[in-house]
Amino acid sequence: MKFDILTLFPAMFAGPFTESIIRRAVAGGRLELRLHDIRDYARDKHRVVDDAPYGGGDGMVMKVEPLAACIEAVRQERPRARVILTSPRGRVFDHALARELVHEEELIIICGRYEGVDERVRDLLVDDELSIGDFVLTGGELAAMVIVDAVARFIPGVLGSPGSAEADSFSDGLLEYPQYTRPVEYRGLRVPEELLSGNHAAVARWRRRKSLETTLRARPDLLRQVPLSPEDQEFLRGLGYQGEP
Amino acid sequence: MKFDILTLFPAMFAGPFTESIIRRAVAGGRLELRLHDIRDYARDKHRVVDDAPYGGGDGMVMKVEPLAACIEAVRQERPRARVILTSPRGRVFDHALARELVHEEELIIICGRYEGVDERVRDLLVDDELSIGDFVLTGGELAAMVIVDAVARFIPGVLGSPGSAEADSFSDGLLEYPQYTRPVEYRGLRVPEELLSGNHAAVARWRRRKSLETTLRARPDLLRQVPLSPEDQEFLRGLGYQGEP
Repeated sequence: MKFDILTLFPAMFAGPFTESIIRRAVAGGRLELRLHDIRDYARDKHRVVDDAPYGGGDGMVMKVEPLAACIEAVRQERPRARVILTSPRGRVFDHALARELVHEEELIIICGRYEGVDERVRDLLVDDELSIGDFVLTGGELAAMVIVDAVARFIPGVLGSPGSAEADSFSDGLLEYPQYTRPVEYRGLRVPEELLSGNHAAVARWRRRKSLETTLRARPDLLRQVPLSPEDQEFLRGLGYQGEP
Repeated sequence: MKFDILTLFPAMFAGPFTESIIRRAVAGGRLELRLHDIRDYARDKHRVVDDAPYGGGDGMVMKVEPLAACIEAVRQERPRARVILTSPRGRVFDHALARELVHEEELIIICGRYEGVDERVRDLLVDDELSIGDFVLTGGELAAMVIVDAVARFIPGVLGSPGSAEADSFSDGLLEYPQYTRPVEYRGLRVPEELLSGNHAAVARWRRRKSLETTLRARPDLLRQVPLSPEDQEFLRGLGYQGEP
């Protein structure tokens, strides 16, 4: 899978992309990552990439010409690329979308900056506008890193074991159950007996119930979209969950 | 404001924290950022920080002892710190929470890794579990960067102009209106006349309407929480918005 990232701050990616699984995925040839400095596409001598907004207001807006030139240059080499703009105005990126994007061969991600990007970039050159959440970042760089990381986990071979991504939160629509490792007792808190029992069915039942309980407490909105067995429903009713009216 | 970040991959923070406004905020003394390597608190000779989960399953779980030792060492110096664990199981981080967290003097952020963190860390040492969205990351490092960036924007003096954070998406509950800068015409697309008019009232009305329209199209769920004037309501009805039943 090929990611091309368009940014005014390519140096921001140094740490996140040279550590951990992203680095390994690149080294293993499963992921190709290129950074493009939008400023290299500004044609005037001061390499201006931003200007004051029409209509007034604080901050600066990213100009259309350098960004358009950069997108079009990258597209020459990535003709099938889906072009994504990171922006708080976009559709909210989530687990399901990460799973969908892994099927793209090529993705171009534009990192917005300043007060925004000239609207004509969206009108002419962007396929999807994505937001990673209801908060505002200084720029789209962190959002681009999040998208690359969350998508890369689904590329076959990127995670150590094939089951790892499947057991994650959200993969079955629920939040993950609690995890424990050695020691069995720490400051008076013991690992639950079910996990020590060696009884696979008891472990599976305990984990399912803890997933349901955790989701009910932290994110009851997620329960509406999950297929629940009669046993799940009974367990949740015991915790006071009324379900859908 | 003081952030202490506990991680197994401190090198990941090099790029994001040494560029752009975070670097400036640190240089200007408005933000103090320290990274702590959890591995330094593992006491055995192999510096083991993770182990297999009780009950079986793929992946590794972060052990309680090194993490507890690291948290407690940092707390010695940051006695007032609120301790946050990044995790997909947490409460969802958003604009309102970023605004709330800026009032903390000290924040400790723990970056989870592998399949999770031994539950007893949460039980004993964590005040808040925060998720940046409904997706799974390789680790909590990117989530920590997002939290630091989104919160730092609200520290007085960190953004260039005091109005910048106020005009952002979500600050009035709506998504931001489209922005334009020079040239007036680009590939046949002109800047809207209202923005060129020099009429402040016309600019303000156009922007309000575009914010409402953008929010209605991309995130109608946000409209429920926004105070709408009679004029806003009439405009939205013209776009087919039915409002609350």
